[in-house]
Amino acid sequence: MTDDQTRPPTAVIDTITESVNSRDLSGLAAAIGELTTRQLVAALERLNARQRAVVYRLLPKQQALEVFEAFPPTLQGELVAGLQDGEVAALFAELDPDDRVWLLDELPALVAQRLLRGLPEHERQLTAEVLGYPNGSIGRRMSPEVLTTHPERTVGETLARLRPRVHDAETVYTLPVLDHERRIVGVVSLRDLLGADDTAAVASVMRDAHTAGATEDAELAARRCADLGVLALPVVDSESRLVGILTIDDAVRILEHEESEDAARQGGVEPLRRPYLSTPVLSIVRSRVVWLLVLAIGATLTVQVLSVFEATLEQLTVLALFVPLLIGTGGNTGNQAATTVTRALALGDVRPPDVLKVLTREMRVGAMLGLLLGAIGFAITALVYAPQVGLVIGLTLLAVCTAAATIGGIMPLVARAIRVDPAVFSNPFITTFVDATGLIIYFLIARAVLGL
Amino acid sequence: MTDDQTRPPTAVIDTITESVNSRDLSGLAAAIGELTTRQLVAALERLNARQRAVVYRLLPKQQALEVFEAFPPTLQGELVAGLQDGEVAALFAELDPDDRVWLLDELPALVAQRLLRGLPEHERQLTAEVLGYPNGSIGRRMSPEVLTTHPERTVGETLARLRPRVHDAETVYTLPVLDHERRIVGVVSLRDLLGADDTAAVASVMRDAHTAGATEDAELAARRCADLGVLALPVVDSESRLVGILTIDDAVRILEHEESEDAARQGGVEPLRRPYLSTPVLSIVRSRVVWLLVLAIGATLTVQVLSVFEATLEQLTVLALFVPLLIGTGGNTGNQAATTVTRALALGDVRPPDVLKVLTREMRVGAMLGLLLGAIGFAITALVYAPQVGLVIGLTLLAVCTAAATIGGIMPLVARAIRVDPAVFSNPFITTFVDATGLIIYFLIARAVLGL
Repeated sequence: MTDDQTRPPTAVIDTITESVNSRDLSGLAAAIGELTTRQLVAALERLNARQRAVVYRLLPKQQALEVFEAFPPTLQGELVAGLQDGEVAALFAELDPDDRVWLLDELPALVAQRLLRGLPEHERQLTAEVLGYPNGSIGRRMSPEVLTTHPERTVGETLARLRPRVHDAETVYTLPVLDHERRIVGVVSLRDLLGADDTAAVASVMRDAHTAGATEDAELAARRCADLGVLALPVVDSESRLVGILTIDDAVRILEHEESEDAARQGGVEPLRRPYLSTPVLSIVRSRVVWLLVLAIGATLTVQVLSVFEATLEQLTVLALFVPLLIGTGGNTGNQAATTVTRALALGDVRPPDVLKVLTREMRVGAMLGLLLGAIGFAITALVYAPQVGLVIGLTLLAVCTAAATIGGIMPLVARAIRVDPAVFSNPFITTFVDATGLIIYFLIARAVLGL
Repeated sequence: MTDDQTRPPTAVIDTITESVNSRDLSGLAAAIGELTTRQLVAALERLNARQRAVVYRLLPKQQALEVFEAFPPTLQGELVAGLQDGEVAALFAELDPDDRVWLLDELPALVAQRLLRGLPEHERQLTAEVLGYPNGSIGRRMSPEVLTTHPERTVGETLARLRPRVHDAETVYTLPVLDHERRIVGVVSLRDLLGADDTAAVASVMRDAHTAGATEDAELAARRCADLGVLALPVVDSESRLVGILTIDDAVRILEHEESEDAARQGGVEPLRRPYLSTPVLSIVRSRVVWLLVLAIGATLTVQVLSVFEATLEQLTVLALFVPLLIGTGGNTGNQAATTVTRALALGDVRPPDVLKVLTREMRVGAMLGLLLGAIGFAITALVYAPQVGLVIGLTLLAVCTAAATIGGIMPLVARAIRVDPAVFSNPFITTFVDATGLIIYFLIARAVLGL
């Protein structure tokens, strides 16, 4: 009942893979027949492109559409490339306008244009509307098919007009209420309509509308939809005229996409555009290599810093022993601060004007952590090595933790202020930066304390 | 229209803070009057506990309830501590049963019991039902108030029974269809009911039900609700009998909570239980110190490894210069792999039985990255220092990248297999582990190549 509905049994996946490889189409059809749509999607995502196309073509028409809709856009694009023109056109016409736009973004321009030309006039117009908004805006992710009503209409009239059209729109549960120039004056939920008297005016049951501007950033609008706990957010143009609607399930899809991107960037990789097991190894390498090179180039700073202090190192090799510990602790402290502040930014708990508040908080947090770790570090190193070495380690931990927390806490705000994704300036980046700073602090303290 | 609806203008926040501090209640009331409920929530979250209580008590009753519902449970708990018993009891009775349970989890047991006793009989029973499920299960987060129908009932009958009761349940848009022993046989959406003929039987328009088991992990159930794109997921007991419903807005709330936790753990901090700016500095320190200590203790491994090779270091100090670069690159490679696999696990794209697939993929990815970085590292170091040093650096980068990607990729699967949150075994942890491994590889290669 529960998990099994979305995750295919491993045995069935194996059967599918074997049947595809041995071209045993009847075995394949039998294996497929056992699966729900969600299980099929999960199973198909784990195959390679060729295998996927073979299985896909065996699906009954309705199930094929459902599976296609559930695929990530990259896989949709790949699959389209493997189907015949007629099949693609039929599939494309069945999609909702907003899903069509996700897919169009994935296809080569020529294919996209051909598909658009093949659409019935009305559908083409709806899709073109959505395509007209800038990349990354909510206009491009909204659904243009909305059922609406007017404030002076009665509840009974509204319900009567709604019933024959319930399958024409993305949602029937939230109706924007419009004046006669399509400007939004409120929203009414189907629940409130059903709860009211048939003779009541819509105006008497509608509520103030939360809306999103069509050119607004898609992530911000989706986050607001989720935070408000509403089932749909009407999308309006600059004159408050209704142009579409964002439903909560689309908002969730957008947020999931963004979370994946943020999580990836935090770890210093470009986001994968498809499920892990169906991503070719070379694409994975590509998603990581640029960041790794940039970070490695950044890390040559540490080689230079150490070269400057090479003479000191030769005098006292014991100093080298603590380098990984000290810069590691600095990196961890910086990461902690950056992680907390990045998340607070994403949730809207902190904003760039709060930079001074964040700075003083993180400096205090870093100093407290540094005092504690420094005291422990001093005690242990003084005992095992020498009191003076202990002093160097203790003071360095104090200074490094304070600097690292401050830098790590400020960095995401700086990123946001200069309009870079805060997650980009993130953990690996901060680690590298803090490494070099930490080494300088370390050797300066060592020279001062040890009189080198 | 857009952003301003949720985020209060900074000037208003300043006015509120000043008015609270100068006890200027009329100025405060005026400033509050300007804000929407969402803005108020955002403004209150930025105040300290005392200030928050002062402002809260000035709110009109209905708005006070809305603000309270929008608070994170920790802040709710704190606020309750500052209100009078009568006020608390009234507020508590107004909450939905599932929201009540979030709050009860935050309160001292005695306070919780007193509040429960104060509830009307019916409400107390509903809340107790939800409280009966284990911590972390979806049973504890579902709503027990569900509207249902029967397969042999007609659409018209169902709608007629629904209308007077639309405000009694968490949702009216998804109705579980039950047999006469409360076992779920399907679901019907309000949309399909409205689209059907009044005389049709519910059985003819209902669909197969996706469900969640009441004791199932809350995050998994919420993720499934979001992935399926359904507005609600019925929750059933072990005999398929309906016990409650999970709505998409509650699923989103659960997922956001989990994402915050994962993001925090990835960065090596315990999740904050309230918005950043309203968290006392000492609580922030507490959320970080344990991890930092654990990681620092782990990092003493690197000191020990370096001690073993101290003689080698004394012979050739130049080797020390590359230590931060090499372990940094290893750490970054390991983090990249861990980040990708952790996310794939969270989305269900990878499962523990895939461990061998992940191992071979990550090993190949790591080797390719290592070949590239190693070649560059060899060329530069051979030119700047000496060909033999270049060889050491190049080979070390190759070996370290391969090992780090493999370890980083496997670690989240190991964590999941032993039922630990994969995010815990995460970036800082992997960095520390990879640091020590990398140093050993480095010095072994150096000794072999340089014949030390």
